[in-house]
Amino acid sequence: MKYNLIKILPLFLGGILFSQNTQDSLQFKNIADEMLMNGTAYENLRDLTQNIGHRLSGSAAYEKATDWAVAKLKEAGADKVWKEEVMVPVWERGKESLQIKSANGKWRSLRMTSLGNSEGTKGKDVEAEIVFVKNKADFDKLSDDAIKGKIIFFNYAFNQKFINTGQAYGDASIYRRAAASWAGKRGAKAVIIRSLSSALDDVPHTGMMRYDENDTAKIPAVAIGPKSADELEKTLKTEKVFAKLNSNCTMRSDKLSYSVIGEITGHKDQSVIVAGSHLDSWDVGEGAQDDGAGIVQSIEILRSFKALGLKNNHTIRVVCFANEENGLRGGMQYAKNVKEKNEKHVFAVESDGGGFTPRGFGLVMTPEKRKQVQSWRALFLPYGVHNFEYEYAGADIGPLQEFGVPLAELSPDSQRYFDIHHSDEDTFDKVNRRELLLGATVMGQLIYMIDKNW
Amino acid sequence: MKYNLIKILPLFLGGILFSQNTQDSLQFKNIADEMLMNGTAYENLRDLTQNIGHRLSGSAAYEKATDWAVAKLKEAGADKVWKEEVMVPVWERGKESLQIKSANGKWRSLRMTSLGNSEGTKGKDVEAEIVFVKNKADFDKLSDDAIKGKIIFFNYAFNQKFINTGQAYGDASIYRRAAASWAGKRGAKAVIIRSLSSALDDVPHTGMMRYDENDTAKIPAVAIGPKSADELEKTLKTEKVFAKLNSNCTMRSDKLSYSVIGEITGHKDQSVIVAGSHLDSWDVGEGAQDDGAGIVQSIEILRSFKALGLKNNHTIRVVCFANEENGLRGGMQYAKNVKEKNEKHVFAVESDGGGFTPRGFGLVMTPEKRKQVQSWRALFLPYGVHNFEYEYAGADIGPLQEFGVPLAELSPDSQRYFDIHHSDEDTFDKVNRRELLLGATVMGQLIYMIDKNW
Repeated sequence: MKYNLIKILPLFLGGILFSQNTQDSLQFKNIADEMLMNGTAYENLRDLTQNIGHRLSGSAAYEKATDWAVAKLKEAGADKVWKEEVMVPVWERGKESLQIKSANGKWRSLRMTSLGNSEGTKGKDVEAEIVFVKNKADFDKLSDDAIKGKIIFFNYAFNQKFINTGQAYGDASIYRRAAASWAGKRGAKAVIIRSLSSALDDVPHTGMMRYDENDTAKIPAVAIGPKSADELEKTLKTEKVFAKLNSNCTMRSDKLSYSVIGEITGHKDQSVIVAGSHLDSWDVGEGAQDDGAGIVQSIEILRSFKALGLKNNHTIRVVCFANEENGLRGGMQYAKNVKEKNEKHVFAVESDGGGFTPRGFGLVMTPEKRKQVQSWRALFLPYGVHNFEYEYAGADIGPLQEFGVPLAELSPDSQRYFDIHHSDEDTFDKVNRRELLLGATVMGQLIYMIDKNW
Repeated sequence: MKYNLIKILPLFLGGILFSQNTQDSLQFKNIADEMLMNGTAYENLRDLTQNIGHRLSGSAAYEKATDWAVAKLKEAGADKVWKEEVMVPVWERGKESLQIKSANGKWRSLRMTSLGNSEGTKGKDVEAEIVFVKNKADFDKLSDDAIKGKIIFFNYAFNQKFINTGQAYGDASIYRRAAASWAGKRGAKAVIIRSLSSALDDVPHTGMMRYDENDTAKIPAVAIGPKSADELEKTLKTEKVFAKLNSNCTMRSDKLSYSVIGEITGHKDQSVIVAGSHLDSWDVGEGAQDDGAGIVQSIEILRSFKALGLKNNHTIRVVCFANEENGLRGGMQYAKNVKEKNEKHVFAVESDGGGFTPRGFGLVMTPEKRKQVQSWRALFLPYGVHNFEYEYAGADIGPLQEFGVPLAELSPDSQRYFDIHHSDEDTFDKVNRRELLLGATVMGQLIYMIDKNW
């Protein structure tokens, strides 16, 4: 008997058998069917990535993207769409190059990218000997003489042993963020870091760095691909190597920009559930997985709720945040406005881990609410969503935590994300239609449950 | 307190906290670390796909692949490597084309592929009117006159509503397998089917069809891509459309070929645990996900067990089966030999669902053994493996079920597989290094547990 039941199980993965509640289970299936059959997220993402492409804060492309988001939210059936003002930093890259020269005396170019927010060399060649360290502890052991006037190369590798690549990213990210500040304080001319990448290719990855307030020298910071990093380390073990860096990146004055917001009005009250993601991207690739995917998923939720005629109790608001990548100004401004308008927020969920197959949700909320969300696990299992253990939420919605808003983030499969993240490889062809729509599906399902129960 | 525990959880995803048994948990981590840090599966797959490429049974490329497998098994440290004789069918494709002509009177070409094992038109044009049906029920309603001398077009779509795409594949596969036989019996000249594909592109997918023993007319069967299929259906609703098919595919005589086997000897006894996959592929793409991935994963298990010095109780045998795609002769011959040699088999696991992130295992075994494997779930959770509910196992190891051998199949994430399966798109660049190695990791972990406990 039991054996027979097990045989039948796969046929029921549509949701009936696992469900705690048939009505919820059927609504889950309605949401899934609507998105998988009629979803527009994939074609919207094609449009955003192919016709606008990457869209760094303050760029003309970003401004185009805000108009695009307004149009798409209206097309999806939003009751109300608007742009929310926010001052954003404007970082510009310009031309850049990195050459190295070892014992053979010949300069050769490496693929490289300046780190976001970094200052450049103002178009002049900065030439110095490269000093290699594996990590911060090794760096701290160096004498000042060994650092002064040199270019410091940090080759801290992405730890492949972490099963969730987000943990490896977290582990290594201090080098991208802080290496220039560490080395600048001790008189170095520039830093080169190994890209935060799970791939073993030669693609350089950018991403945010920052100088400390008390940094007197804002030295340039650049990244090279893992292959170049390994080769450079190997050469440095037997030879002196010199680098010649030439770059033009710099931080300009802040500029007026916009987050884009669309909502469907609540049928019971005006309190708000946010589905968020960020509209800006780095100035490389197409910003497809980071975070075009989150944008089109959020819009898909609004579209499908409208198409299904779901009578949401609370207002469901899609927020396309400005400037997540190099400032988080959109998220901070949004929270400020919420406070000023005294808007009640029931819940906020973000998608900023890529449009890969969903595996779970990170949750930041009270133990009681967390337990309640976890009690819905059986409803999500037929959709492959099983992990509700992580405690994290999206960066853009993070500032809402101050007001006690329960937060979540879609937790997609993490294996492919950091191969392409913040690089020229983050392009539309890396996104799978079904994976993207399944992510939107389970976010929609979670919003449905919270809208009904909170 | 509980809140704090939850905060800490992600840090322990390496395996300690979830483990039932610290020793097993540590061994799981050793296997994972060894593969993720030193695994050769990805580079082996690059070699197989780029230097040999696709390798249909009976082809010169397949014979090259058997030598390749022998070399790789030796390199991995197998105690014993051999080729096992098996007679395989030899199907040859040759040149092929499909043109259609509607009311405008102009012939235009469609991307197409003959289905595997199909007979062709012997290089002559076969021209006829196309008759469209959506499914078998519609076909059955047609009069004999409506079928006789026509080319029947079955446009049964891959059902996007199934969350596990394997179910959609199972649902639609009868059209690929049997349509030519249905239509041939009723006097049709040929059949065109919509490819079994989860993508909405225009890539045609091949795959096995078969004629019934009592089929008098072996009519040609070809597939077109989903886009062409939708366009053709649309045109057929308002206009007559004619097709002109020209193909040369045919079945030749059987040929002597080989499965390739390598093993590490058991320390306790000579009973066998099989890690299997198939070495052959269709004659399109590079046979990367289907099933080069499974081959290099199986070899990786042997390599890592040897590298870690795990003292396996039972013999661990990697079987690279011949001819899964269009005959299953390798699997059937292997089972026959097991019976003849009276070899005891403890367990067999196959990887033939692609080298995507592992999600679980399909299990075919007694309820008691199934329950025991499911009791290990907590050990696998830190590796993202959560689903032990499916009841299926690999095709190649299937014939071992007759002898009561407990069987399993790796169940990877299914979203991307049928976009590329049996098509020109099944190439190395579709495989992710970490996903591939994680699949090998969890197969190795399952083998470790069974070797220890059974």
